[in-house]
Formats: sequence, C-alpha cells, structure tokens
Amino acid sequence: MTERRLTPLARSLPASVPFVGPETHERAIGKPFVARLGANENVFGASPHAIAAMADTAPWMYGDAESHDLRGALAAHHDTTPNHIIVGEGIDGLLGYLARLFVEPGDAVVTSEGAYPTFNYHVSGFGGVLHKVPFRDDHEDPAALFAKAAEVDAKLVYLSNPDNPMGSWHRGADIVSAMDELPARSLLVLDEAYVECAPEGTAAPLPADDPRLIRMRTFSKAYGLAGARIGYAIAAPDLIREFHKVRNHFGLNRAAQAGALAALQDGRWLCHVQEQIEMARLRIAAIARDNGLIPLPSAANFVSVDCGADGAFAKAVLDGLVARGIFVRMPFAAPQNRCIRVSCGTDAQLDAFAAALPDALAAAKNL
Amino acid sequence: MTERRLTPLARSLPASVPFVGPETHERAIGKPFVARLGANENVFGASPHAIAAMADTAPWMYGDAESHDLRGALAAHHDTTPNHIIVGEGIDGLLGYLARLFVEPGDAVVTSEGAYPTFNYHVSGFGGVLHKVPFRDDHEDPAALFAKAAEVDAKLVYLSNPDNPMGSWHRGADIVSAMDELPARSLLVLDEAYVECAPEGTAAPLPADDPRLIRMRTFSKAYGLAGARIGYAIAAPDLIREFHKVRNHFGLNRAAQAGALAALQDGRWLCHVQEQIEMARLRIAAIARDNGLIPLPSAANFVSVDCGADGAFAKAVLDGLVARGIFVRMPFAAPQNRCIRVSCGTDAQLDAFAAALPDALAAAKNL
Repeated sequence: MTERRLTPLARSLPASVPFVGPETHERAIGKPFVARLGANENVFGASPHAIAAMADTAPWMYGDAESHDLRGALAAHHDTTPNHIIVGEGIDGLLGYLARLFVEPGDAVVTSEGAYPTFNYHVSGFGGVLHKVPFRDDHEDPAALFAKAAEVDAKLVYLSNPDNPMGSWHRGADIVSAMDELPARSLLVLDEAYVECAPEGTAAPLPADDPRLIRMRTFSKAYGLAGARIGYAIAAPDLIREFHKVRNHFGLNRAAQAGALAALQDGRWLCHVQEQIEMARLRIAAIARDNGLIPLPSAANFVSVDCGADGAFAKAVLDGLVARGIFVRMPFAAPQNRCIRVSCGTDAQLDAFAAALPDALAAAKNL
Repeated sequence: MTERRLTPLARSLPASVPFVGPETHERAIGKPFVARLGANENVFGASPHAIAAMADTAPWMYGDAESHDLRGALAAHHDTTPNHIIVGEGIDGLLGYLARLFVEPGDAVVTSEGAYPTFNYHVSGFGGVLHKVPFRDDHEDPAALFAKAAEVDAKLVYLSNPDNPMGSWHRGADIVSAMDELPARSLLVLDEAYVECAPEGTAAPLPADDPRLIRMRTFSKAYGLAGARIGYAIAAPDLIREFHKVRNHFGLNRAAQAGALAALQDGRWLCHVQEQIEMARLRIAAIARDNGLIPLPSAANFVSVDCGADGAFAKAVLDGLVARGIFVRMPFAAPQNRCIRVSCGTDAQLDAFAAALPDALAAAKNL
C-alpha cells in the first residue's frame, strides 16, 4: 500500500484527545491517585438497586437495540413519550451523532470559550468551524451565544447548564427567556448533564416537543454510572428519528441499560447522593477558604476554586496536587483558568485534598 | 425552526436498522422467545472470572480511555504491541469509525452479496457506494472480491472468515495467497469475529504490521460478552492511530474492559465453550437431517440449514419457528436465502428447536 486513502477531512484532523484520563496520569506518575477528584465522577456511587440490576444481567445477550424499557421509564420520568428520547453511549456519543447529522466542513457552530471540549472535538471532527464567545462573570452567556449564532448563521449552539468547568448556572426560566433571541435556523444543544445536582428550577421548563433545542442528560453524574457509559437526549420526535440513521444500533451495553433503569427508579438514592454532593461542595469551599482561596458557587458535583492569580499559577497548584496524589482538573481558557476544579469527594478524599493543598500552594508560590 | 439543517448526506439516508433485535420481535409477538437462537450469541456464557471481574468494577468511574490493560493483554495474546490494537464498542463501532475515516460520498467499497449488513450500513451512512460479488458455493469468494476491488478501485474490501451468515470458512493460508491479487490501493477489512469457533488454521497467518489489512475481533461470540459491547481491531500502528482522531475516547464501559481482560485470560473456559459449540453444531445438524434438511458445514457458533427450496420457503419455515417461540434468522440474498441460520443453543433450547421444526416445516409446505 502506497498511502492510506483516508478522506481529506480525516487526514486533516489532529490526533487529539479531548481529555487525558486519570489512568493515563496514574501510569505517567507510576502510582494510583489518593483522591480521584478530577473527572466529576460520583464517588458516592450508584444506587445499590442499579448495581444489583447490572449483576443480574446476562452478559452473553446483546442489549436491546431499542432501549425500550429504559426509554419508556425516561418518558414517564419526563412526562413525554419514548419517541422523544434517544439513549446513547453517554452524552459524548450522542454529541458525536448530532455533529455527524448536522455538521459539514465549513459549517458554523457556536460555543463558549473554555466550554466542553468533547463537543468541540466532535464538531471539528466533522469539519465544523467553532465560533466562541467568552464567559461573563464566570457564567455561560446565553445572550452572547445566541447573538453570535445569528452573526455566523450557526447550525448548532452549545450551552451547558449548570456549566462545566465553572459550576455556575442559570435559572431554567432565564434560559427560556433568552431563547427568544435564538435564531430560528440554529439548534440549541442544551447540556444538562449536571442538572440533578442543581437547585430546583435549573432545568429549562420547556416541553420535550420544542423544536428549537435538544437536551442532553446522563447517568454518569448524579446517578453514579459513568463507567456504564449511558446517556440520553430529549427532543422533538422528528429530530430523535434522525439518530436512528447513524447510530450504532447494538452499541449499548445490556447491563448499562438495566442499571440506568434501576437508578432512575431509585429516587431515594438520588436524594442521598444530592445531600452528599451538597455537603462535599461546602467542605471543598471551606478548605479553599482555609487556604485563602475563593470557592465559586456551584450547582454541579464539583467546585471551581479561584487560586487568586493567573492560569500559570493555577496550573502550578494543580501540578502540585497531582504530584501529591490528588487528581483535579482546571478550566482551559482565561480568565477561568485562574481556577482549579475539584470534584466532590468522600470525607477521606477531601481530607487528603485538605492535607495536600497547603503544600501545593506553597510550592506554586515558590516557583 | 423552519426545517432541520441536516447535512445533505444525513437527509438522504434511510431510517434503516441493520437488524431487528430479538427484544423487538418479542414485543411484537407479545411473549419472550423459548429459544433465542437468532443473534449468534453465546448461550454457554462468559467465563466466571469475567463475570466476577465485571461485578468487582466500580460503575461510578469512567473507563480507562486508553484501554491500557486490555490492549496490553491483547498484544501479548497476539504477539504484537499495544500500538497495533484499538479497542472499541464492538466490531460494529469499529466498522463505523473505519468507514468514517475512509469513505466519502461516491467512494467505492466491495463486499459480498448477503454479507454483514452492519458494514454496509456504515459505508452507506458515509455515502459510500457498495459493489457486491456473489458467494461461490456458499463461501465468500476472495478472488472475486479482490478482482471487483481492482475493477471499481475500492477503498475498502470486506471479507469475513469464518463467514456470517453461512458459517463457511477458508483456511487462513488461502486467504493470504488470494491477497496477492488484493489491489495495492484497497484495504482489506478481515472480519474474524467467529475465528475462535473455527478449526486451527482459520485465522490468517499474517503479521499485525501488514499494511494491507485491518482485522476485526470481538468478545461478543466465543467469549460470551455480547452484552458488554467490546471488540478490537489489529492493524499497523499508522492505521490504528487514525482511530484516535474520531473515536469516542471515553466510550468504553469500564466493566466491559475488565470482563474482556479476564475472559481473554481464561483459556480453559474458552476451550469449554468451543466444545459446547461443536456439540451444538452437531446437534443442529442432526435435527436438520432428521427433518430431511441439509445442514451446511460451519466454523462459527451457528449452523445454516438448507431448507431445500427457495427464499420464500425458508422464510415461511423461519416464520413458523418464530411463531413457535424459536428465534432464528436467515441469509438476506439468494441463493443463500434458501437457508435458515440457527445459533448454537443449550440442550434445552435445541430440544425446543427440534420439537418446533417439524410443525414449522409442515406449515410452510402447506402454505
């Protein structure tokens, strides 16, 4: 073979990865992390019923290609119909299918500077051109996003609420009001991955039928099933149907479907997790303040902590924590990159964070 | 919104599904199948070590984005390096990525008439044009495939060995000889999903570095982990690296990775399954002969049974079996569609098949 006959688009793509995973870091440093607080996982775990349901699933059978039972339960949960719901290999997988359906080389897409890199990865992977607007006071800025969408005639506009990496949020009603300025030719991709961690009123109060948006949800965060890789989207049925043209029909793990169904039905465990997340956020904030740092308000399962200087300093603090076995991450873009992002942890993990932070800060100041 | 701004390609695609899943059939007929013998699953199950490894996996943690441990074990198993291996969401997922990397609208791809529909689904999904050659004596025909590839300047050529849906196979050495005629500009996609069910010498004896092909393997068949959705490809590192540009980096279920690793290391269980498969093939063949039908030789975990007439008759037999709670499938293309395809089952499942077949045959003859 002379040369690989990749498509020109594939040839042009960088061999990038949106995130470096914690295991990759651990292999680089040669030992496991003491506290895994960087991937916004749910250390409080999945519902025992979900774990039991997964263990009861025969692994030799392919998963149901229609996710019939789970879609039915999700429809009941959201007071809509199964035809408004598509289940996929995490929000990441669904964002990939969405980009494939909408984005051709040169198509305009709008997001915030420093927002979810995996969305950007998928858009770029299909040749889309990303237009970015800055955060406003550490919040995503719907008005600016929608104005930019009008300016560049964006096919897709990405907005996460609550936001990652800052943990900030808007009232759902305010998102809905802002959508008056969403261009009619732009589809809003509303990523509500963290909404179960947020105050009442954060989810956008819009019917599943609303043609202007597709909403992304996941079992990876509050439901504690990140390892199962299962998420879903809610949208008008004509849009949901399009996914069936391109998705990997038998791509969903059978146990993941069963686990998600059981997790969804265990409201009591979700409340328990929500309480744990709230306590952990308070504890992270207290640790930050004890060290002279500023915790930002958060409606997610992590807290971004303002380290009080620039991105280089925050990066030094992060490196110091990682070197001490504390896995955290940080925002990519200025000025949000003055922060480190700390996922909610168990008491023991946050003890380890509290123990390591003073040394990491001191080391960063001495660089 | 006036109209969805899908890409022209997405708009042109049919809302097709490569296969209708057994659960979909069950919901249509209103009751579960007595014997699930249509999806070529492994009813003998996964290694107990694999099941234990999955149960021991914390579902709240994302899977390792590099599948480091599994790739390492696979490299050792195949006497190659981890850089020659990509792990994905089943062969289906990997075929999707491969099509995305290589296929643009109008690109030529070659496969056999009636071969794996999910490959075709992915090729068509990226706008590729499929050119098909007939089976030859119920075997895939490498010489014809490669001649067609030369004729149409195919980017990809698909060949499964052992073959699905017929269960026929070629000696690996014969595939290698035939590859002398593989055009230098065509990449061979050698699907060896069933190779662990086949006689020694069926796997193509080629180094992982060979630039002419990519080999697909899975944990869904002999390893009994269809529900886990995990497969892998072996190819030269320059080709493997391309997958990292487009794959869903965190798309792999954590428990699936652990289960696959344990399954790979349990050679004793694999031998047990291979024996069970061989006995079940013999039993299916005997049942077929008892009913005056002709079982075809098979190197896979199923047997195609020649019903002795045309596709319409075989379809009537199949419908009769399904109506009696026996889930089987059949080839799509003539003349292979004179057969029904029966997956290896437990004794009880094959008892049920044996009990239902005479009535299904009689009913088909009376149509």
